[in-house]
Amino acid sequence: MTRPAPARPLYLDCDTGVDDALAIGYLLASPEVDLVGVGSVCGNVGAEQGAVNTLDLLALAGRRDVPVAVGAPEPLAGAFHGGAPGVHGRNGVGDVELPPSGARPAAQDAAELLLRLSHEHAGQLHVVAVGPLTNLALALRADPTLPARVREVTIMGGAALHPGNVSPVAEANIAVDPEAAAAVLAADWDVTLVPLDVTMENLLEEPDRDALLEAGTDLAPWLGQVLDLYFTFHEGTFGRRCSALHDPLAAAIAVGGVTATVAPRVHVAVDDTRGPGRGQTLCDLRGLYTGHPDQPGARCRVVLETDRPLAPHLLERLLTL
Amino acid sequence: MTRPAPARPLYLDCDTGVDDALAIGYLLASPEVDLVGVGSVCGNVGAEQGAVNTLDLLALAGRRDVPVAVGAPEPLAGAFHGGAPGVHGRNGVGDVELPPSGARPAAQDAAELLLRLSHEHAGQLHVVAVGPLTNLALALRADPTLPARVREVTIMGGAALHPGNVSPVAEANIAVDPEAAAAVLAADWDVTLVPLDVTMENLLEEPDRDALLEAGTDLAPWLGQVLDLYFTFHEGTFGRRCSALHDPLAAAIAVGGVTATVAPRVHVAVDDTRGPGRGQTLCDLRGLYTGHPDQPGARCRVVLETDRPLAPHLLERLLTL
Repeated sequence: MTRPAPARPLYLDCDTGVDDALAIGYLLASPEVDLVGVGSVCGNVGAEQGAVNTLDLLALAGRRDVPVAVGAPEPLAGAFHGGAPGVHGRNGVGDVELPPSGARPAAQDAAELLLRLSHEHAGQLHVVAVGPLTNLALALRADPTLPARVREVTIMGGAALHPGNVSPVAEANIAVDPEAAAAVLAADWDVTLVPLDVTMENLLEEPDRDALLEAGTDLAPWLGQVLDLYFTFHEGTFGRRCSALHDPLAAAIAVGGVTATVAPRVHVAVDDTRGPGRGQTLCDLRGLYTGHPDQPGARCRVVLETDRPLAPHLLERLLTL
Repeated sequence: MTRPAPARPLYLDCDTGVDDALAIGYLLASPEVDLVGVGSVCGNVGAEQGAVNTLDLLALAGRRDVPVAVGAPEPLAGAFHGGAPGVHGRNGVGDVELPPSGARPAAQDAAELLLRLSHEHAGQLHVVAVGPLTNLALALRADPTLPARVREVTIMGGAALHPGNVSPVAEANIAVDPEAAAAVLAADWDVTLVPLDVTMENLLEEPDRDALLEAGTDLAPWLGQVLDLYFTFHEGTFGRRCSALHDPLAAAIAVGGVTATVAPRVHVAVDDTRGPGRGQTLCDLRGLYTGHPDQPGARCRVVLETDRPLAPHLLERLLTL
């Protein structure tokens, strides 16, 4: 008889956020990983609200044991512009009032939590970041030896050969804090970047939301409610109520539930100028046309294709919660 | 009996250049247009060498009547870096020694020639630019009323949803003079931008080059020779000797020999910062995903798909010369 592989310790950094909520649910439902901590960062909502949302979701899933730390209230350069209420609601969870957990965030901030977990799980910790990269950058600043203790980093962010979503070329997570993204992508660790090129190809549809609403479980129906406003927002993009699965796709690639089939390992620069390209991830994909897409010395895999649609797999797992 | 439509007057701005040479030949062989003048600009080679090459090619085609003006020796900002000898040869025409025409360029410079032609053919002139946009920017500077007299502008340049060719995101023509490109794309005229997205999809192959070499005509065999080095260069990109048809594709779209089938009319910014995105054309293609790709007030069509492969049509015309 084979013993199952031990669950890999995973730290999630997020700005909860509707699709963050799906990613949290997915990670909790995934036996391959052990969610050992969550940090919040300003992005879809403020960092404090993101932590409250995360604590509420964890409580609904019966996982009050997972520590949640509040992270950076502002990007490295400049002020926080107030999130995306038209996308995620004023409270980040689609203006749904989740049952308040009453739980308190950790005394440490998110960067401190990440550093502590990197020691506790040295060499094993998988870092998944689905918000702006401010907390990761602050942790790198506080302790530049962090990458040596991290197994790998998976990031939802950027756009490679796909238009941006907050400018013609910039994706929201990177655009909120380009300086942080530049620091994280320059650090000496293995990164998998999950950009709009693939997240915009993975959609949750109305019947999927209905299934969540009717699940009869503790968390899933709330996720179905939280998705309502987000579905309406996406009507402007896709012409029908549905939802791009940005953050859950990064989570699923980290877990191994979805596999990247085209993901060249290339140098990625982040535009941190004040010019029109600010916030763009400049992925050097010129090698796609020579048949040699990987670049020597590069440590960032840019996911351009995956092996299967995320939605059925995601739904199957969320319906267990 | 129907009378053929009168040939449209066309000014070509180029940095001749191997693919420029093909574009010149194609335009001379196209009854739909009347090549009323050519300006040279620093790019693939220096502006003076580009004019010499152009005069030599025109003489071989028996078209010494077409005026050729030397244009800008340097980009608007910064120095000319010496061209691309590894791509186009030290002399721009693949290090082939064309029979010297002995012809002299016009007394005017290229910007002056363009302005003069815009008066002579007011409302009719089609401007086709297949090199850096320095001359067009200088003409706009000298006379901001120029756009009112130009029917339309077709530009080979930029990369929209395709990697660049001189940086991860920048194409050579725009990268040589981003300040000029920004000015040209901000001017009040109708522009068709023909970027790498489509030019890299249109290739000339070895049998095509053989056909040119064996044409038994005045110009075509020389074009076949000129292509030799360029074919070798492209081996590094495509894994075989062949040639991307950058400049001739822009010429063919201007003439109507190839039709753009997907060409959203969008706002295009040029990155003229000193950051990693310098020289990028930032085409706002977010509307592709909403089903409303055209943007109100935008005057630049970005060509993303065309109706047919250029090579057979190009070859058919070049073989007549």
